[in-house]
Amino acid sequence: MAYFLVCVECEAQYDGSKYRLNCGLCGGLLDAKYDTPATVEARVVSGAQGTARFLPTLPINDAANLVTMGEGNTPVVPLPRVGAQLGVANLNAKMEYFNPTGSFKDRGNTVQVSVLKDTGVGEVADATGGNAGHSFAAYCARAGIRFHGIANETNADSRKVHAIGLHGTDIHWVGAGKTARSEGARRFAEDAGILFMNYGQNIYFIEGLKTLAYEIAEQMDPLPDHIIVPIGNGSIYQGMWRGFREMLEDGRVARMPRLHGAQTVETQPVVAAFEGRVWTPYEGEAASRANGIGVTNPPRPKALLEAAEESGGKFVAVTEEKILDWQRLLASMEGIIVEPTSAIVLGGLENLLASGDVKPSDSVLLPLTGFGVKEPIPGY
Amino acid sequence: MAYFLVCVECEAQYDGSKYRLNCGLCGGLLDAKYDTPATVEARVVSGAQGTARFLPTLPINDAANLVTMGEGNTPVVPLPRVGAQLGVANLNAKMEYFNPTGSFKDRGNTVQVSVLKDTGVGEVADATGGNAGHSFAAYCARAGIRFHGIANETNADSRKVHAIGLHGTDIHWVGAGKTARSEGARRFAEDAGILFMNYGQNIYFIEGLKTLAYEIAEQMDPLPDHIIVPIGNGSIYQGMWRGFREMLEDGRVARMPRLHGAQTVETQPVVAAFEGRVWTPYEGEAASRANGIGVTNPPRPKALLEAAEESGGKFVAVTEEKILDWQRLLASMEGIIVEPTSAIVLGGLENLLASGDVKPSDSVLLPLTGFGVKEPIPGY
Repeated sequence: MAYFLVCVECEAQYDGSKYRLNCGLCGGLLDAKYDTPATVEARVVSGAQGTARFLPTLPINDAANLVTMGEGNTPVVPLPRVGAQLGVANLNAKMEYFNPTGSFKDRGNTVQVSVLKDTGVGEVADATGGNAGHSFAAYCARAGIRFHGIANETNADSRKVHAIGLHGTDIHWVGAGKTARSEGARRFAEDAGILFMNYGQNIYFIEGLKTLAYEIAEQMDPLPDHIIVPIGNGSIYQGMWRGFREMLEDGRVARMPRLHGAQTVETQPVVAAFEGRVWTPYEGEAASRANGIGVTNPPRPKALLEAAEESGGKFVAVTEEKILDWQRLLASMEGIIVEPTSAIVLGGLENLLASGDVKPSDSVLLPLTGFGVKEPIPGY
Repeated sequence: MAYFLVCVECEAQYDGSKYRLNCGLCGGLLDAKYDTPATVEARVVSGAQGTARFLPTLPINDAANLVTMGEGNTPVVPLPRVGAQLGVANLNAKMEYFNPTGSFKDRGNTVQVSVLKDTGVGEVADATGGNAGHSFAAYCARAGIRFHGIANETNADSRKVHAIGLHGTDIHWVGAGKTARSEGARRFAEDAGILFMNYGQNIYFIEGLKTLAYEIAEQMDPLPDHIIVPIGNGSIYQGMWRGFREMLEDGRVARMPRLHGAQTVETQPVVAAFEGRVWTPYEGEAASRANGIGVTNPPRPKALLEAAEESGGKFVAVTEEKILDWQRLLASMEGIIVEPTSAIVLGGLENLLASGDVKPSDSVLLPLTGFGVKEPIPGY
């Protein structure tokens, strides 16, 4: 299916022949648009699974360039004991960590790396170190794309960084901090004359997350009343919103679930913007164990607020104590170990129940985004 | 479906009302037998996924006692670059680590723990510390069964042991060594008057692994010519054999793939028995990074040899160097990080190609059993 890119600021249009991060005219970020197929059925490749199943909704020109290793097609699993403790009768998890590198990031990277292959890019640089970087390294390895990953020296003992290395990434070290990392990647790419990916800002990663919405619509009838996800860059949130919006437009679903987002008390720019409060970023790095969402300045804040308004969702902040409590309770009551970054959604649900935004009789779906054994387990 | 247990030594029979490890008469291990349903179709619950799909083939009396969290239903993914390097045109992986606790052990434990629930057991003791123990702890947590895990003090820093703790396991420490651990578990159970599980010896765990064969038969047509798995206790090997045998008997498949097993050079009791050699267990613990298969005395050696004979399979030993090489190559060429215990199957394939047992034109399936990020990555 043909797609094109549109600047979110000045509405300039570009075809899908090149990897594009920004608008060439005004520097704005880009959105992906599609020549919508005539029928609802044409959106899904019958019989295929995972990314290949939803290819007509993704920004990939040639299906032969799909870089895939079985991501997606994750099960929906009931959480009866945690549900009873919270007072929600109908609580389910979508097991997003049953993915090739143990996190939902694989849905974004299968598309992002397919776009690189589809547009003839053979060498890239980007900041790296967490689940997103591990996943990106894995897909680059599979695609035969050379990846220069700029990592923090302070993170050299992390198993995720070791995994990134095992995938054959050229790791270049910089000092501490996310800014040093992404600045280092930008400069390295400029010096070497290669592509700076900037995974958190490009639209391709977000487009890959639409597959989560498409799968939920196939698995759950009726759709859940509420879906709650962690918010860092907000790619999973925007991906789901875009997916459900496409399905609403073409009549595949009748309504959109209310999409909620959870942030840490420490790093809550989106919650503050949603509530009309001023929030001042702290100096240095986030201290929360929910390290995957320590993003002080998400790249598409307007889209996040628009998605919340359109779906009737909210953004809530969760304390560190609650995040770690829920990580432990999910493990001991339901048998599921996720990272603190993922466990935050249970704290978010607790808040939304307390405020009355979620009613005890509502159905709630929690995507569990990252496997808890990829990083040290708190308390040990 | 009704099932019963039969002693592999004296053929005494027992009904499925109790958890049984051994024959009450002669102490022999037990096999599970079924009142076979009349039709092939009756073996599969149409529309269900994972364990629930294959419930009629499993030793569970009441479906309401199924303890499940989305295990199974793992994708088959091509390994084109590794295949090209080895000279095999048709090489695929079954992504067995896309499971709740990151390993194939979840297929065994969903059944094992369901049997505990089905027979009214509320508290158990067993040795613990690796993928099997982590998985068992998770399913016990989900079932609300109290689990006393006897672990080695020398293993206290392992993330798998931390995960076992986070699931709410009562951990009891003993000194070094697998023997100390299992002896400790036996004694603890005896003193406390609770059930000693002995997961490596009971038949329920093996029965759960049959679901792997059933899934392969649904996913691959034609069936692969060869399947290669790691051999520790040999549960995955026996589970697949039992599954394919059942399907052969009732006409669901026309032939059985050749089932091969890989062991380390260090710990190769099954390879030696297969080749008619004497193999003397070493003193102390195995040193290989393939720590999941350091089993010097597998519990059902006769069944392993019978399965190899019946399927036309072989057992081969792989050097430590090859295991670690293949772990790295799989990560850098295909984007997949598995544990050394899992990477051994690529070394096994290399050996079988060299001996001519696998032909370049044959199709080969490699179940990838354990996620590589659950334990420290060699070289870091």
